[in-house]
Amino acid sequence: MTYTLSELAAEVNGRLIGDADHLIDGVGTLGGAGPSQITFLANAKYRKALESTRAGAVILGAADADVCPANAVVVDDPHLAYAHVSALFAPPVEVRHGMHPSAVVSGDADVHPTAWIGAHSVVGPEVTLGANVVIGPGCYVGGHCSIGADTRLVANVTIYHGCTLGERVLVHAGAVIGSDGFGFANDKGRWVKVHQLGGVRIGDDVEIGANTTIDRGAVEDTIIGEGVKLDNLIQIAHNVRIGAHTAMAGCVGIAGSSTIGEYCAIGGGAGILGHLQVADRVTVTAMSLVTKSIREPGVYSSGTPLQRNEEWHRNYARFKQLDDMARTIRRLEKELETLKKG
Amino acid sequence: MTYTLSELAAEVNGRLIGDADHLIDGVGTLGGAGPSQITFLANAKYRKALESTRAGAVILGAADADVCPANAVVVDDPHLAYAHVSALFAPPVEVRHGMHPSAVVSGDADVHPTAWIGAHSVVGPEVTLGANVVIGPGCYVGGHCSIGADTRLVANVTIYHGCTLGERVLVHAGAVIGSDGFGFANDKGRWVKVHQLGGVRIGDDVEIGANTTIDRGAVEDTIIGEGVKLDNLIQIAHNVRIGAHTAMAGCVGIAGSSTIGEYCAIGGGAGILGHLQVADRVTVTAMSLVTKSIREPGVYSSGTPLQRNEEWHRNYARFKQLDDMARTIRRLEKELETLKKG
Amino acid sequence: MTYTLSELAAEVNGRLIGDADHLIDGVGTLGGAGPSQITFLANAKYRKALESTRAGAVILGAADADVCPANAVVVDDPHLAYAHVSALFAPPVEVRHGMHPSAVVSGDADVHPTAWIGAHSVVGPEVTLGANVVIGPGCYVGGHCSIGADTRLVANVTIYHGCTLGERVLVHAGAVIGSDGFGFANDKGRWVKVHQLGGVRIGDDVEIGANTTIDRGAVEDTIIGEGVKLDNLIQIAHNVRIGAHTAMAGCVGIAGSSTIGEYCAIGGGAGILGHLQVADRVTVTAMSLVTKSIREPGVYSSGTPLQRNEEWHRNYARFKQLDDMARTIRRLEKELETLKKG
Repeated sequence: MTYTLSELAAEVNGRLIGDADHLIDGVGTLGGAGPSQITFLANAKYRKALESTRAGAVILGAADADVCPANAVVVDDPHLAYAHVSALFAPPVEVRHGMHPSAVVSGDADVHPTAWIGAHSVVGPEVTLGANVVIGPGCYVGGHCSIGADTRLVANVTIYHGCTLGERVLVHAGAVIGSDGFGFANDKGRWVKVHQLGGVRIGDDVEIGANTTIDRGAVEDTIIGEGVKLDNLIQIAHNVRIGAHTAMAGCVGIAGSSTIGEYCAIGGGAGILGHLQVADRVTVTAMSLVTKSIREPGVYSSGTPLQRNEEWHRNYARFKQLDDMARTIRRLEKELETLKKG
Repeated sequence: MTYTLSELAAEVNGRLIGDADHLIDGVGTLGGAGPSQITFLANAKYRKALESTRAGAVILGAADADVCPANAVVVDDPHLAYAHVSALFAPPVEVRHGMHPSAVVSGDADVHPTAWIGAHSVVGPEVTLGANVVIGPGCYVGGHCSIGADTRLVANVTIYHGCTLGERVLVHAGAVIGSDGFGFANDKGRWVKVHQLGGVRIGDDVEIGANTTIDRGAVEDTIIGEGVKLDNLIQIAHNVRIGAHTAMAGCVGIAGSSTIGEYCAIGGGAGILGHLQVADRVTVTAMSLVTKSIREPGVYSSGTPLQRNEEWHRNYARFKQLDDMARTIRRLEKELETLKKG
Repeated sequence: MTYTLSELAAEVNGRLIGDADHLIDGVGTLGGAGPSQITFLANAKYRKALESTRAGAVILGAADADVCPANAVVVDDPHLAYAHVSALFAPPVEVRHGMHPSAVVSGDADVHPTAWIGAHSVVGPEVTLGANVVIGPGCYVGGHCSIGADTRLVANVTIYHGCTLGERVLVHAGAVIGSDGFGFANDKGRWVKVHQLGGVRIGDDVEIGANTTIDRGAVEDTIIGEGVKLDNLIQIAHNVRIGAHTAMAGCVGIAGSSTIGEYCAIGGGAGILGHLQVADRVTVTAMSLVTKSIREPGVYSSGTPLQRNEEWHRNYARFKQLDDMARTIRRLEKELETLKKG
């Protein structure tokens, strides 16, 4: 995979300053790239590294072009341009059609001739696999699932029965889609299972991280909107709805029946309680807990600052006195007022 | 799967108001159910939706029967009654006996003739599988495990050697039972493994969520009591003991050697440190951290409220001054006292 | 596996007090061990249990030897000595060479004759497996990976292409190594994938817990240093570097491009934001969030104390007034000062 700089500049609609015929065969960091590699500068704090880069070319904004010692590809959004370039250097997924001899596929599955079912995978009855679908090794797809064109399950993925995945969905290893929602009724202390009769519907262009779990709905479906990106080890409970183009970092947990808007960003380890509404374009910072519905776009947070343990502990202990402190302050205000009057 | 309303009412010991012969073939929500579906009302805040429901029947309490525009099944506990009804509409797990030709089963495993071992599963030596056990596709059951009647491992589940599962246990996809506890001794900075020689014992009627992990004991067993329900992505460390009928929501972590009582409810993302005792009937709210033993039943919490980021940040920064604030308040109180006396 | 006490004492360089020929065939706890089992006392709070132990022998420090009613093996560090003893009683991993007939192994994989590839595992092209490597059942090893001698993948492990594991690495079930880092550029609200072109490099003597995920680097590699121990359900994002001999408890999340030092201890459920530096010998307590780089060794914490819900709620509500409280205190101080002067 080798490209001339003029090819790469054309790919990203960039303005090339330098040698149009320079050959690029890979990517690197500003600090690590060599003469045959291309890199990018998208964050002002790495500008220093630009000055000494040995890269063959740098994708950057106009403001940084002056100080670039290498060939430059000038664009409006260097990170976005780099994203497009990175696709050119990604190792291709091997194209195979049909199925590995060890795959176990139900006779009445509807498998597109260009789809591939990998070694030791199992595909249940009445499953539909679209064009160019790749079911990696060790996956299980339960009955009555529908998987759209160009979708890939990487390896050891489990999809329970009756789930629908759109086109160009990428499901990373170990992810589980369609497991039972956590629903139980209580009968004098004992839990009686509420059978989870809904499914999961996943839109086009969704990416689901490694070992992430998405439960099926109790009655209606759990819904992941188009273009949603979920990182690793995320838990999506039953009947959650996630709006299009929302992104969630690792270790997030969303409790049952909550609805998250479009274009949201949920930070790592954050939690959202059940039966809440979160508006479009809401950002929740890492490890915050959302306990009420959020009606307005914006950035929301909870939590306390990190300190050295001994300092933190002094403040931590005072947290238990906060209400008393507030009452004492109020009393002092009143007493002082009286004193001033007197 | 079609039932008359009189059949469904009988199933839940409900009083039927309406057409006893009305046919029901599925479940729905109050808002989404059609004339051939049954729904339920268990939460007062959905009463409004009752008035306009198009459902064929509604399971509800006596207080709501008046305003129900559809056939009604009146019960004491609508959620519990719905749980029983939901079982009638759950798609049956296909009944198969024996093993898939691709399964790899040790010659000295003791497999009940009504058990099933699915495609690409591996069952080790001296494993006992009871009546109607279902080992789904891609599972691994290590040697010397015992799995009780009617227990099901859904798919891609791993059970390490020497673990015992009771009857009617449901283990969701990707769960891992019996992995090594996190035990190391320190030898001048390097970690020396403490081999984990206990096992895991899981009682009857336990449900274990997708990608949940339960470590084996260091010396004695990790124990999950009868009727315990664990949601997805939960971590149970070595030598934890969980009392019967306790439920834990997703992403909870329990550190080593802690003992949790019976009938507890642990909220999503909560943590419990190691070597603690938690009494029976304790509720811990979401994302709280338990750092000391809890001796009394009740509801326990930690954490701070969610706010808009800029407001939160002002308070967050003050957390570091809490101890100083408390001392200043104390000083002001004294000074004011002096002033008042003087 | 039976040893005389003199053999066991020799193994740990301990001083034996008692019957050198006493036979030991297993381990137990102070409270549970019988006459043929050995136990240890490493924590003063279990000293009471020592007095009534029925164990065949106890590994302990000199200070506790007097009150030991059983044979004693006196050492400097009983926990470390026990770790060595535990290895003697660990069930041996069955030694097999070659591959199970159901394994699918690329013709150009370089597999050491003493390595073993288990049932239903898949090994991709140009993979190198060193001496005594054990690939357990249901694992997937992508192309161009290198796995060092004596390393073991337990079961249902996924290693993506192009990853390197050192020697004596133990990877527990369900772990995923080399999944795509969570990298996207934003194009008018839609996410464009930044292809993740780095790999993962894991040093010697690393242990990786069940269902833990380690993402591949965006450009350069994600690096896990020698002797690092990761518990279950940990998320390591792209381009993280973890220094040698650092240990992390379950459910930790480390965001992208952060560098963690050597000999660190990260408590369960803790989070570390992206692009940070954490010095050597830093301890972060459970469920703390690291939002800034940590330059100095020491113990660091965040969070609030657990209370009964009604008490907690009073203080929790006051958190929103913290900044106002601080300002009021400051005003009261000034007013009081004025009053005192006047």
